[in-house]
Amino acid sequence: VAVPVDDEGLRVDRLAALGPAGPRVVMVTPAHQFPTGVVLSAGRRAALRDWAAGCEGLVLEDDYDAEYRYDRQPVGALQGLAPERVTYAGSVSKTLAPGLRLGWLVAPERLAEQLVAAKERDDLGTPVVEQLALADFLERGELDRHLRRTRAVYRGRRDALVAALERHLPGCAPTGVAAGLHLVVALPAGTDERALLAAARAAGIGLAGLSEHAVTPAPPALLLGYGRIAEPAIEAGVRALRVSLPA
Amino acid sequence: VAVPVDDEGLRVDRLAALGPAGPRVVMVTPAHQFPTGVVLSAGRRAALRDWAAGCEGLVLEDDYDAEYRYDRQPVGALQGLAPERVTYAGSVSKTLAPGLRLGWLVAPERLAEQLVAAKERDDLGTPVVEQLALADFLERGELDRHLRRTRAVYRGRRDALVAALERHLPGCAPTGVAAGLHLVVALPAGTDERALLAAARAAGIGLAGLSEHAVTPAPPALLLGYGRIAEPAIEAGVRALRVSLPA
Repeated sequence: VAVPVDDEGLRVDRLAALGPAGPRVVMVTPAHQFPTGVVLSAGRRAALRDWAAGCEGLVLEDDYDAEYRYDRQPVGALQGLAPERVTYAGSVSKTLAPGLRLGWLVAPERLAEQLVAAKERDDLGTPVVEQLALADFLERGELDRHLRRTRAVYRGRRDALVAALERHLPGCAPTGVAAGLHLVVALPAGTDERALLAAARAAGIGLAGLSEHAVTPAPPALLLGYGRIAEPAIEAGVRALRVSLPA
Repeated sequence: VAVPVDDEGLRVDRLAALGPAGPRVVMVTPAHQFPTGVVLSAGRRAALRDWAAGCEGLVLEDDYDAEYRYDRQPVGALQGLAPERVTYAGSVSKTLAPGLRLGWLVAPERLAEQLVAAKERDDLGTPVVEQLALADFLERGELDRHLRRTRAVYRGRRDALVAALERHLPGCAPTGVAAGLHLVVALPAGTDERALLAAARAAGIGLAGLSEHAVTPAPPALLLGYGRIAEPAIEAGVRALRVSLPA
């Protein structure tokens, strides 16, 4: 069941309007909605908490990209608002390495036993060596240091991307820039996003489109990730992007 | 669907007798049937191959305990007899450490793509650090050296356990001794296995019973594991066991 997202995040009113026939479990990425990059607003957080309380529902909070915020104070996790109605998930896939396959859940007490049993049935548990290494890394404050260092690196890349977009595509008004490792550039209405992506790929430019990650038809837009590209390459990439766009 | 096991392993005739209404996928542990410790005989291996060919079935071969054989030449994997009808599974959980959570499948070519997709859907893949370390360990021949060394250790423990059983429980005739890390001691017919296990536990002796691992009612028997017990402790353990058994 897809629920629309606007510039404040999930339309909780649309979720609630589904009523008793609608879902009682909802999955959200409040820190940086994927793919739009929108941060779930304070009002929507309160509304989502009220929705869950009202229907005895459960919110699955995937806190991905929460560690990388640039222009604003960190927003607390939704889980803190309603610990009995939210199962919080985090991982080191974006911050350290996806190959570690390590994450964590903070779940309501009443679900703990079932979750442990499900995990055991699923895979008999996660490898222990990385868990011990990560625990040590956390205890020594190394993850915090790593995040402070990489936050500055990613902010630099984001700033370089925003500046290059302003230079080469003035008026494109990127969104989702306050956090995370990608931003969104809307394309002119009527642009054939799929054809544009195919043409860019044929020219050796890897681009991702909003529609590839949307459940229902989405307006044409590009997702530009800057997590793995060094600052000097960003300017050249945006120049190549401009050439591949329709006039 | 449970299929009986005798001293040659799975009763393939009973599996085949289930006919088209019976299962077309069968799970076996040919190297050391769990829990009886029986090795699947050459005749049964051929019969199982024929069964799978006849019904276009699939055999899931869990090759657990195959690395630890003591009194006989290694038996080849069932997979070698019918590579298009067998999916072979192995792991380092028994040989190196269960905490590594590493194993492998050798599957018919036609299933490879679906298996890769299922693995990706399930967990996005296994952590890479241990995989690289294990690959290096294998390439340098270290796993073979480790197995040769531990095979001698486990054989010593098995011999100590068999000798202690002969001394303290003459006539108990343990079975499943040719391979693996546990053997089976039948209890006199009519013994209440569950009561005996409870009494032993109350006396501080941890014992496992055959019925705990059987799908249908099984004759009373004990599973005695020697993977984690040093030789000097085995004699004392069997003496304590004798005391806890009914006269």
